[in-house]
Amino acid sequence: MLKRKSIPHITINRLSIYYRCLEKIVEAENKKDYYIISSSKIAEMTGINSAQIRKDLAYFGQFGKRGTGYYIKNLHIELRKILGLDKRWSVIIAGAGNLGQALVNYKGFKKRGFIIKGIFDNNPLSIGKKLDHVYIYDIEEMEKFIRKKNIMIGVLTVSANSAQEVANKMVKSGIRAILNFAPTHLILPPEIKLHNVDLSIEFESLTYYLSL
Amino acid sequence: MLKRKSIPHITINRLSIYYRCLEKIVEAENKKDYYIISSSKIAEMTGINSAQIRKDLAYFGQFGKRGTGYYIKNLHIELRKILGLDKRWSVIIAGAGNLGQALVNYKGFKKRGFIIKGIFDNNPLSIGKKLDHVYIYDIEEMEKFIRKKNIMIGVLTVSANSAQEVANKMVKSGIRAILNFAPTHLILPPEIKLHNVDLSIEFESLTYYLSL
Repeated sequence: MLKRKSIPHITINRLSIYYRCLEKIVEAENKKDYYIISSSKIAEMTGINSAQIRKDLAYFGQFGKRGTGYYIKNLHIELRKILGLDKRWSVIIAGAGNLGQALVNYKGFKKRGFIIKGIFDNNPLSIGKKLDHVYIYDIEEMEKFIRKKNIMIGVLTVSANSAQEVANKMVKSGIRAILNFAPTHLILPPEIKLHNVDLSIEFESLTYYLSL
Repeated sequence: MLKRKSIPHITINRLSIYYRCLEKIVEAENKKDYYIISSSKIAEMTGINSAQIRKDLAYFGQFGKRGTGYYIKNLHIELRKILGLDKRWSVIIAGAGNLGQALVNYKGFKKRGFIIKGIFDNNPLSIGKKLDHVYIYDIEEMEKFIRKKNIMIGVLTVSANSAQEVANKMVKSGIRAILNFAPTHLILPPEIKLHNVDLSIEFESLTYYLSL
């Protein structure tokens, strides 16, 4: 088995997709109908080919019966653990613009254990307001807040100009992972897990195919 | 060379990252200092390892001088073409909530040729308003609009419940690619290019590493 650290990022993203597929089955009323699921059934539900699915899951051990499939309940629980979804994660958002607001309102996070504890901005018109039960605080209070509440994950939806400065403050106060929506390249210590979300890249994966 | 259709999606995403890196150099004032860039320099700027970079670029032909590097200007232009960024793309957004608004305001799109022509919603309080020079129209007018303006790309920021219905309307009126932010699995004809953006998956790629 590979060391978990060296498993490719894209595999982890696919695990999230398999997890959603199993979740759907586990949550369905007719779950008793399923006990074992084949990789070709997962393939059909996710659009990922079944050889890839078997390869991805094999990184993490033996979840199935060769030639038959995977024990649904077991695989669901294991993927949950692997993805860290059996824990609750305290998250803060820096930037209370539209994107920050959209993230606060996004229903999927809470379900998966991502609890948004606060949102930080420097706009006096926003500070003190509440977005869907989450307070907007002065960005000056962010560092103290991170330390006090032991926040692990920071989300950046600030402008490209201030992203590096805000990220530095997050790191200094103990944040361990940053999800960056600001369209800029951040330089962070290697022990900080950084994931950049560039919304125009999502478009480019479409126009590439439209240009063929 | 592989057929372009079978080049992995993740490679295309990395091309977008290389493109941004080259763009930065081309736009910099001291661009005359650069003529050729090595894969290890791109690696340093992007955080992707240089063997991967060479492999990804080799899919598309010979851009460099073996052992020296890539001709920056040439590679920049070629990646632009490959990614379809040498064209302008007409885009509509269905759903004028926070996420739809955030996308309209996102500065990166226009620069890359993605022109948002309209945003559609069923909320009478939003219809007729303007967001950053883009009108919010009644969703009932969407199909006619797509046909008339020859829109190629549709973005879904509607709720999971209505996403499939709105997507069907998009497809019926001639949309060729859909970027789906709604947290649901869409079923579309195979000729339609679909890309799902699940914002909680972005978090899971962090918590996986935090759980190691």
